[in-house]
Amino acid sequence: MNENNSDFREWLKLLDECKYAKLKEEINEENAANMAEFFEEVPEEKRLLVFRLLTKDNAADVFSYMDSDMQEDILNSVTDNEVHTIINELSVDDAVDVLGELPANVITKILKNVSEDRRKLINVFLNYPDDSAGSIMTIEFMELRWDFTVGKAMELIRKTGVDKETIYSCYVVDSRRKLIGMVSLRTLLLSKDETLVSDIMEDDVIFVRTLDDQEDIAKIFKKYNLIALPVVDNEQRLVGIITVDDIVDVIEEENTEDIEKMSALLPSEDEYLKTGVFHLAKNRIVWLLVLMISGTLSSAIISGYNEVLSSSVLLAAFIPILMDTGGNAGSQASTLIIRGMAVGDIELDDVVSVIWKEIRVGIICGAVLGVINFFRIMLLGETPIAVNIIVSVSLAITVVISKTIGCMLPMLAKKLRFDPAIMAGPLITTVVDSISLIVFFNMARVFIL
Amino acid sequence: MNENNSDFREWLKLLDECKYAKLKEEINEENAANMAEFFEEVPEEKRLLVFRLLTKDNAADVFSYMDSDMQEDILNSVTDNEVHTIINELSVDDAVDVLGELPANVITKILKNVSEDRRKLINVFLNYPDDSAGSIMTIEFMELRWDFTVGKAMELIRKTGVDKETIYSCYVVDSRRKLIGMVSLRTLLLSKDETLVSDIMEDDVIFVRTLDDQEDIAKIFKKYNLIALPVVDNEQRLVGIITVDDIVDVIEEENTEDIEKMSALLPSEDEYLKTGVFHLAKNRIVWLLVLMISGTLSSAIISGYNEVLSSSVLLAAFIPILMDTGGNAGSQASTLIIRGMAVGDIELDDVVSVIWKEIRVGIICGAVLGVINFFRIMLLGETPIAVNIIVSVSLAITVVISKTIGCMLPMLAKKLRFDPAIMAGPLITTVVDSISLIVFFNMARVFIL
Repeated sequence: MNENNSDFREWLKLLDECKYAKLKEEINEENAANMAEFFEEVPEEKRLLVFRLLTKDNAADVFSYMDSDMQEDILNSVTDNEVHTIINELSVDDAVDVLGELPANVITKILKNVSEDRRKLINVFLNYPDDSAGSIMTIEFMELRWDFTVGKAMELIRKTGVDKETIYSCYVVDSRRKLIGMVSLRTLLLSKDETLVSDIMEDDVIFVRTLDDQEDIAKIFKKYNLIALPVVDNEQRLVGIITVDDIVDVIEEENTEDIEKMSALLPSEDEYLKTGVFHLAKNRIVWLLVLMISGTLSSAIISGYNEVLSSSVLLAAFIPILMDTGGNAGSQASTLIIRGMAVGDIELDDVVSVIWKEIRVGIICGAVLGVINFFRIMLLGETPIAVNIIVSVSLAITVVISKTIGCMLPMLAKKLRFDPAIMAGPLITTVVDSISLIVFFNMARVFIL
Repeated sequence: MNENNSDFREWLKLLDECKYAKLKEEINEENAANMAEFFEEVPEEKRLLVFRLLTKDNAADVFSYMDSDMQEDILNSVTDNEVHTIINELSVDDAVDVLGELPANVITKILKNVSEDRRKLINVFLNYPDDSAGSIMTIEFMELRWDFTVGKAMELIRKTGVDKETIYSCYVVDSRRKLIGMVSLRTLLLSKDETLVSDIMEDDVIFVRTLDDQEDIAKIFKKYNLIALPVVDNEQRLVGIITVDDIVDVIEEENTEDIEKMSALLPSEDEYLKTGVFHLAKNRIVWLLVLMISGTLSSAIISGYNEVLSSSVLLAAFIPILMDTGGNAGSQASTLIIRGMAVGDIELDDVVSVIWKEIRVGIICGAVLGVINFFRIMLLGETPIAVNIIVSVSLAITVVISKTIGCMLPMLAKKLRFDPAIMAGPLITTVVDSISLIVFFNMARVFIL
């Protein structure tokens, strides 16, 4: 796919040689996503020049694909008049996305430049909570009245369709703008002109409300294989639609959030390279502290078995292997359960079969690891067989317990309405550490002392 | 959204009361995804009965939404004739998905029942490698010849559009079926009947090849906000299209795979609850063994510093806290880098700025944790101040080193063309363990002995 680079090189050459007419012609034919990428390559002092070579339509389009830093640069360097044009050409939801990322003083400058209607609308959008249907929907949708004929509907689509986010799903409303049905452009095309829209629409239409959470909305898209979904307000009136390309971003965002939580990070929506050092440190230190303080427990346990350890300092050498294996075994189980619940494969009702499964998996893994560990220690040769047996059996028991706890904690979290993802690896490691140490030292006490 | 349950209860009641005519009417109006869900609630012995109440069209549709176990059940209980109908009503890519999950003897039974053309086609599909464009594409696309007028194109769409996966993106081919352009239904609708398709098509069309990897394809969809993407063979001939709803599944699958690798699991495409205990154990034991064996290193280190440990058994109590904090700090860094590379925010070129950033984040986190740890130990009161200083300083140093290694290993993996995800938490924990122990015991040796 990367034939772009040769284009980019050619354009940069045109730019160097000041062949602007030729450059203008070429870049206005390129698609917007690639053009936004090209701007990353353009030397900073020439960006504005290149941006001004774009036609009005293209400029707004390319602008919407740029990252927020680049957008801010552009908005800061163009005239008020140009700001006005860009923001007015953007669809309302894109404009809101742009504004959401900008500092307050730039927002003020921009809102000063847009028409009052549009300013009001943008303000409504800016007030929807993050992650809600309202914040990701667009208002550029195709709305049909229930008493339209297909012919009239097609005429309306031809006339106004060019400004809509999608015309492939059209939404049918009654005289009070309540959503009562959906009809696809495909159905309209395959129907006769005189047919009534209300006769061919699907009246069992799936919809969400403005305050619904984007994660739930993504699940609905996946379940029904949708390309668009209508959004209604409290009075069931149609206020917007969400399209599947926005949902693709939501899914990536939600997955990133889960992965971050599973690694004991506070989730962040900012790109790594654009996040400051202090902000990154802040997102990490909370969990590091919690886990470190809870590690006090492990220390207390080891201190408590001081007399066992003094009688055989050798035992200390096996603490890491027990802890690490237990931690890894536990986080394997918790990861599978957390992910299974996130994608909807595992429900709370499955708790008994999950635990029973993990106990059996734990016994198999524990037995195999215990036996291999026994031979590993034997081959290394320096450890008394009694200690070897204690270590290997403790290891096997630890694996079984870790797997069982690893599957239970995320389900417990879900039951208590916490996010299961925070119960992943790091927390389980801490819990499992204590248990594996207690098992280990008690076995040692019984068999060595 | 869960108004389904009350419907389900009503239908189960109708089923109990043998009111089949009423039930038939109601379930044939429900959407297919919900119906497939309803089948999970129907008692096994009545499933076939309910399935037969569905009309031919609906039956295939509902069937395509069922999970593979249910599909196998249904195929095993219906007549050959019904198998024939279902498989022929399914789109080819859905049929291939169904067959891919079934045991060989059932596949043979089914292929016996389909027409020869369709059998050949299905066999071609079954031979595309997993995760390739070929395996996820559909052949039900809208193809237009370059010399068509808009009027003729619209006529063709009206005539054949009902069987196509999407009619909203139409693909333009030359007389040798080579892909030369794309035109959206929107553009067609907004153009005059006598216009030539070749005059309004986009000729700079983005496409992929049959063997391209699905993960790369998902990236293309995200970058360009596509709803469909054409697939061509080696001679640039159009052979299929991929639609965004399939890509949503691909993204989830790839994310699951990454998450599994990051938790030291061999990736698996099967649902947890449907995977056997031995299979689950096998997917986990490989990494547990690798990590356990590499834990030998930690044991060797501790044994090597036997004389330090004997002089102060107390030190052993701090091993867990050092190891866990180092492991957590390292996996935080590696997770952010792995995810950043997966979504395309971080490139290999960024290596220097990433390392420099992690060193600074490490110093902040390390200093804060070290200081808090010092006061924590002091408050608990039983530890000599010399030991306390050794532990707290080691902790701070460990955090800095862990963050640095945590960000370097995934980038090194990518450079060496391994999957960065396997460099996540568990592996880093093992590496970091050794380093933190060496730091700790050396400081202890210098300051205590």
